[in-house]
Amino acid sequence: MTWIGIDLGGTKVYGVVVHGEKIKKDAKRKTPTSGGPDAVVDTIAAVIQDLGGIEGADGVGIGAPGAVDHEAGVVRQAPNLAGWQENNVPVGSLVSKALGGVAVFVDNDANAGTLAEHKRGAGRGADHVLGVWVGTGVGGGLILDGHLRRGPTGYAGEIGHTVVTQGGRRCGCGQVGHLEAYAGRASMEREARERAAQGTTNKLVELAGDGRMTSSVWANALDARDPVAIDLIDGAVRALGVAIANAVTLVDLDVMIVGGGLADRLGPTFVGRIEQSAREQVFAHGSAARVVPAALGDQSGALGAALMAAESA
Amino acid sequence: MTWIGIDLGGTKVYGVVVHGEKIKKDAKRKTPTSGGPDAVVDTIAAVIQDLGGIEGADGVGIGAPGAVDHEAGVVRQAPNLAGWQENNVPVGSLVSKALGGVAVFVDNDANAGTLAEHKRGAGRGADHVLGVWVGTGVGGGLILDGHLRRGPTGYAGEIGHTVVTQGGRRCGCGQVGHLEAYAGRASMEREARERAAQGTTNKLVELAGDGRMTSSVWANALDARDPVAIDLIDGAVRALGVAIANAVTLVDLDVMIVGGGLADRLGPTFVGRIEQSAREQVFAHGSAARVVPAALGDQSGALGAALMAAESA
Repeated sequence: MTWIGIDLGGTKVYGVVVHGEKIKKDAKRKTPTSGGPDAVVDTIAAVIQDLGGIEGADGVGIGAPGAVDHEAGVVRQAPNLAGWQENNVPVGSLVSKALGGVAVFVDNDANAGTLAEHKRGAGRGADHVLGVWVGTGVGGGLILDGHLRRGPTGYAGEIGHTVVTQGGRRCGCGQVGHLEAYAGRASMEREARERAAQGTTNKLVELAGDGRMTSSVWANALDARDPVAIDLIDGAVRALGVAIANAVTLVDLDVMIVGGGLADRLGPTFVGRIEQSAREQVFAHGSAARVVPAALGDQSGALGAALMAAESA
Repeated sequence: MTWIGIDLGGTKVYGVVVHGEKIKKDAKRKTPTSGGPDAVVDTIAAVIQDLGGIEGADGVGIGAPGAVDHEAGVVRQAPNLAGWQENNVPVGSLVSKALGGVAVFVDNDANAGTLAEHKRGAGRGADHVLGVWVGTGVGGGLILDGHLRRGPTGYAGEIGHTVVTQGGRRCGCGQVGHLEAYAGRASMEREARERAAQGTTNKLVELAGDGRMTSSVWANALDARDPVAIDLIDGAVRALGVAIANAVTLVDLDVMIVGGGLADRLGPTFVGRIEQSAREQVFAHGSAARVVPAALGDQSGALGAALMAAESA
């Protein structure tokens, strides 16, 4: 059977055609930053046309950044999509309508990525898997007993918003002490700029200028042994170690997969340090739980969306 | 059908006979503090004789304090049983042998208590339940999709050993910042005695003298508005709020049940404050998750052990 998977990201809409074990084709377009959900739906439909249209496809899966009601195909909130202020957008039925009625399934992008790594990547063969996606924010997905756990509200897996330090650093969501406040790129950028404003000039701000502090900026500042970059990445490693250890202690897991833009750029050394930090803090010392880098790179979200659609149909 | 449930505690061995919805009989004896596992097995057998013996019973369930391999019926470690230094004690087969071959099932006591509250207590009707047992330490049990989650190592649910504050207070297990370090009675007693030794005399130490700082000592010191007792209980409430919020954020749950000796003694006000603290910190603000007091009191462990045996047979 043939499934189309769409990774709806903050900067691009990336689509793949999946047939059996193979990705047959891919295509991408820029995510519109104005025009709201309608413009995004049009772009998704255009990417699917670029892929050859829906003829011969059994359905479409979409991984969306934000809170998703999978059952209803609704994106409740998508704070990281520019120009998308609307709540409760029925993306599934809108895309289906634009494509003439094909079956469309929607899930959170971190869930989709975790599903892909579980079925075809670094989590192959494991039954209890946590995916941790370190990019602008920190997303997560949870596989228990071989199945994606969505939970009664659909928010399961949000490890980025678990507390690692009571009364700690302010998170983008407004709460304090969350993992994302220490390991999300946007929050680390805020911290680096604040330190510069307070007189601790650093390579990060120098390299980024007025632009976004990309994953490459972080990698280059670390290579240059910039003390602020080292300190903030050390903090991210420790926070990821704590949050991952907590997940293992509470839920009991086999494999934790760390991926996403920042983790992919910093590579296996970064992930190895997170494993060491987590291992030192896991209560069940007999646990053979491993922390490994994601294996599918940029394609995990779109591939996972296709696999999610196949499972949901 | 008829099942015998045994709650193996640090101070007493409490047993019940469960027939259908009813507890038909109960009995208790002191837990031996010397003689190791053999003496404990003899006491369990004696309690079962007090209950009328195994005639007519379909099996026995035992809830044990510590790390349990449920499949094998083995207690891996039981650090809170005096005189029990042995690792990997096959309690299931030892008790079965002492009773002439009846089926015996063993699980962690927090799992047993959570199962009882789920089936017959405060968690009735909910599919996603966390039991948090606040006593000498802090234990936990996790029900997902209506079933007890043990996980691949059998350690699932150990919320007491999740970190609430990086680099925080030392836990009895040797790690730092764990929930149990803030909310377990033994750890709070250490803290109160340390503060007294450093000059901050307090009602807790005065009431306990050289004896154990019991739950009643804590309740009485709070009633007397002792500042150290208030400060430490405030810290316990905040730590429980953080750990419970983290569990809801990661796993997505309906009902969190707070029980155990200290929580039972401090009552619904204590649990209500924990709910408020957790609610303020849960990411999914739409979550209708509730934090409620345990409903079965002292009987939950033994009842849950019987229900666990019925499920396992």
